[in-house]
Amino acid sequence: MQQKRVYLDWNATTPLRPEARAAMAAAWDIAGNPSSVHTEGRAARKLVEDARAIIAQAVGSVPRGVVFTSGGTEANGLALVPGLRDAQGAPVERLIVSAIEHASVLAGGRFAADRIASLAVTADGVVDLEDLRRLLADGPPALVSVLLANNETGAIQPIAEVAAVVHTAGGLLHVDAIQALGRIDCEINRLSADLMTLSSHKVGGPKGVGALVLRDGVVLPQALIKGGGQEQNRRGGTENVLGIAGFGAAVGAAMTAARDEAAHMQRLQALLEIGLRAHGDAVIFADNVLRLPNTTLFSAPGLKAETAVIAFDLEGIAVSSGSACSSGKVTPSHVLAAMGVPSGLAQGAIRLSLGWTTTESEIHRLLEAWIKLAGVLRRTNLRTSA
Amino acid sequence: MQQKRVYLDWNATTPLRPEARAAMAAAWDIAGNPSSVHTEGRAARKLVEDARAIIAQAVGSVPRGVVFTSGGTEANGLALVPGLRDAQGAPVERLIVSAIEHASVLAGGRFAADRIASLAVTADGVVDLEDLRRLLADGPPALVSVLLANNETGAIQPIAEVAAVVHTAGGLLHVDAIQALGRIDCEINRLSADLMTLSSHKVGGPKGVGALVLRDGVVLPQALIKGGGQEQNRRGGTENVLGIAGFGAAVGAAMTAARDEAAHMQRLQALLEIGLRAHGDAVIFADNVLRLPNTTLFSAPGLKAETAVIAFDLEGIAVSSGSACSSGKVTPSHVLAAMGVPSGLAQGAIRLSLGWTTTESEIHRLLEAWIKLAGVLRRTNLRTSA
Repeated sequence: MQQKRVYLDWNATTPLRPEARAAMAAAWDIAGNPSSVHTEGRAARKLVEDARAIIAQAVGSVPRGVVFTSGGTEANGLALVPGLRDAQGAPVERLIVSAIEHASVLAGGRFAADRIASLAVTADGVVDLEDLRRLLADGPPALVSVLLANNETGAIQPIAEVAAVVHTAGGLLHVDAIQALGRIDCEINRLSADLMTLSSHKVGGPKGVGALVLRDGVVLPQALIKGGGQEQNRRGGTENVLGIAGFGAAVGAAMTAARDEAAHMQRLQALLEIGLRAHGDAVIFADNVLRLPNTTLFSAPGLKAETAVIAFDLEGIAVSSGSACSSGKVTPSHVLAAMGVPSGLAQGAIRLSLGWTTTESEIHRLLEAWIKLAGVLRRTNLRTSA
Repeated sequence: MQQKRVYLDWNATTPLRPEARAAMAAAWDIAGNPSSVHTEGRAARKLVEDARAIIAQAVGSVPRGVVFTSGGTEANGLALVPGLRDAQGAPVERLIVSAIEHASVLAGGRFAADRIASLAVTADGVVDLEDLRRLLADGPPALVSVLLANNETGAIQPIAEVAAVVHTAGGLLHVDAIQALGRIDCEINRLSADLMTLSSHKVGGPKGVGALVLRDGVVLPQALIKGGGQEQNRRGGTENVLGIAGFGAAVGAAMTAARDEAAHMQRLQALLEIGLRAHGDAVIFADNVLRLPNTTLFSAPGLKAETAVIAFDLEGIAVSSGSACSSGKVTPSHVLAAMGVPSGLAQGAIRLSLGWTTTESEIHRLLEAWIKLAGVLRRTNLRTSA
C-alpha cells in the first residue's frame, strides 16, 4: 500500500484552506471588473473590499492602509522606495536591510545599490541592535527593513526594540511578516511597524496574492506598477478578484484558528526536535532564541541538503533545503552565512516547516526517515574519516 | 419576472470560461511551490509550464519567451524599460507611445517623463505613420508602444506597417495585444512585434494574471519585481499557480474557438450597429477603419455617459463609459480627445463590447433600452434647444 505523502514544507507554501476554496468558487460567477460602476462591477468591488477589511483587522490596521499586490515579493518591492515618509517626518533617502531578509528585500526595491546597507545578525540569527544603532547614527533618514520571523530558521526578531531604535533616529520601519501571519501576533501598532508585508499563500490562501499594509499617515511616493489608478493610485492593474477573495477567506479562517493552530504546531515541533536530537548529530539553528512554532532548520556533519531533500522525497516526505525561493538553485543559505555557520554545516541545512493539518504520525514518519538517513550518514562519515 | 442581466462590457473583463474554472479546480490540490524541487513542487511547476506552452503557441512564440505577470498593467510596466535591446541592436534610450494607449502604457514604465513622446492618431483612431517617422527621425534608438486594438474604439492598428517603420529606424516595437487576443490574429512574428502584452481576464481566464511575451533574442535589462529568481530572473515572486493554470486553459479554449467566436461576435456587432443607427443620432467612432469584431463605441448629441451607464444598468444591462479603468472616475476619454472628437460628443461615449456567449436576444434587449434612452434624449434635446 502506498503511504500518503507527508508535506513538511509549509514555509515554502501551504495547502489551500477549505475556506479559501469556497470563497474562490463563490467568486467564479462574479464576472465584473471592480473598476466598473455597473452592478457586475460593484459586486466584484464588494469581494475586494470585504477581503480588505478582514486583512486590515488581522493586523490591527484600517482598510485604507491595505494595498493588494501580486504577492510578498511585489509588496516588498513596493515598500522599499526612496521618498517614503510619514505625515510628520522627512522622506527616507537610504535603506538598511537585515542580512537575513528574503531575496526580494535584499534586492533593495527602488534604492540604488550604493544607498543600501546591510544590518548584521548574531550567531543566534536575530538582528544586532548595536549594529543598527551604528548604521543609523550618521546619515540621512533611513528606511529599515527587518522581517518578523525568518523564513529559514524561524527566528523571531525583536521588532518592537528595532522600531524604537529606528524611530528615535527619525527612520521608518518595514516589517516583512509573511512567515509570521497566522503563527504569531502581527498587530502593526503593537510592533510599531510603519509598513508590513503579507502573503496569501503562506496562510492558506492562493499563490500570487499579497498585501502591503501602511500605517495610517505613511505615504508612498509612487507606485511600482503604474496606470489605471487602482488601490488609491498605489498599485495599478485590474485586481486579482478571485485571489483576493481567497486571501481574505484564508486570513479570516487563520485568525479564528490561530491560537489553536500555533499550539498544535508547537507541540509537534517539540516532538520533532526531541526526535531529531536523539538520532544522529543534528544541530538545530537559532535554537537559543524564540522561533516560529512551526519552523525547524537543522543540519548534521556530512549532510548534503540536496541529496537529503531527494532522499526524503523518495520516502514520501516533502522538505526543503534552505529557503524555498533558492531551493531550485544550489546556493548556500545567506541566512546561515550571516549567522556565521561554517559552510560545511550550512550545506546540509534542511528546513522542516509544519502546518495546521500536520499530524503526530507525520512527525513520526519524518523521524523514521531521518533515522534511516542519519544511519547512512554515520556510516559514510566513518568511511570518510577512516 | 425578473429578466436575466445582459453583460455587454467584455472589454472591461470577461466571464470565466468553463475550461478556466475546471483547470483552477484541478489545481486546488496541487499544494507545492513551483520553486521547490520535491514532488509537490514539481507538480506545481508542471502546471505553470503547461500553461506557458499553450500561451506561447497562441502567439506563435516559444515558451522561454513568455514571462508571467500579475496582469497586463504589470506586463506593460515590465516592457517599458530603458536599456531594452535585441541580440543585435543598441539599447533603447527613449519611448514613443501612441496617444490611444492604455493608462499603464501612457504611464511610461521606467522611462523618465522627458524621454517619452506621444504618437498622434488620425480622426479614425489609428496611429499616424507620418508622425511616427518624424518622431523616429532624430534621436537615439527608441522603444515604440502601439496597441494592436484599442480598448475603447476597437480600432485595429496597422502593426506590421508600424513595425517596418520602427525597425528601419533601429527601434523596438512593443504591442499591447490585450484586447486583441482571441478576437483577431496575434502571431508575434506575423506582426513583427518585439514584445507583446497579454492579459488573462480579457480572454476568459481569471483576473490578476497576464504575460509579457518577448521575441527570441530580446533582452530585458532588469526585472520590475525583483528577488527570488523566478521567470528566468525576469519577474520575481512565487507564481500565481491557480491563475496561470486558469489563464492557460482559457487561452487554449479561446484559440480552439477563436474563428467561430469572432464570426459570431461580428454578426451580432453588425446587428447592433444597424439598430443603433436606426434610432437616435448615434455616432459610431472609428467607423471607417477595421475594428475588433466585438467593440462598438458610440455617442449621440446630448448624451451623458455616466447617466446612460446607470440607465442601462437599471434596465439590467452592463455597459461601459469610455475605458473600464477610468470608468470609476469622471474623466473624458483620452482616446476620443486624441482623435479630435469634440468634448460634447465624447462625454456621451458608451462602449458596447460583446463576447462569445452574447446572444441575439441580448442585442435586442440593448437596442430596446437604447430606443427608450434615445427617445428621452430627443425630448430633452428639443427642450434644451427650444
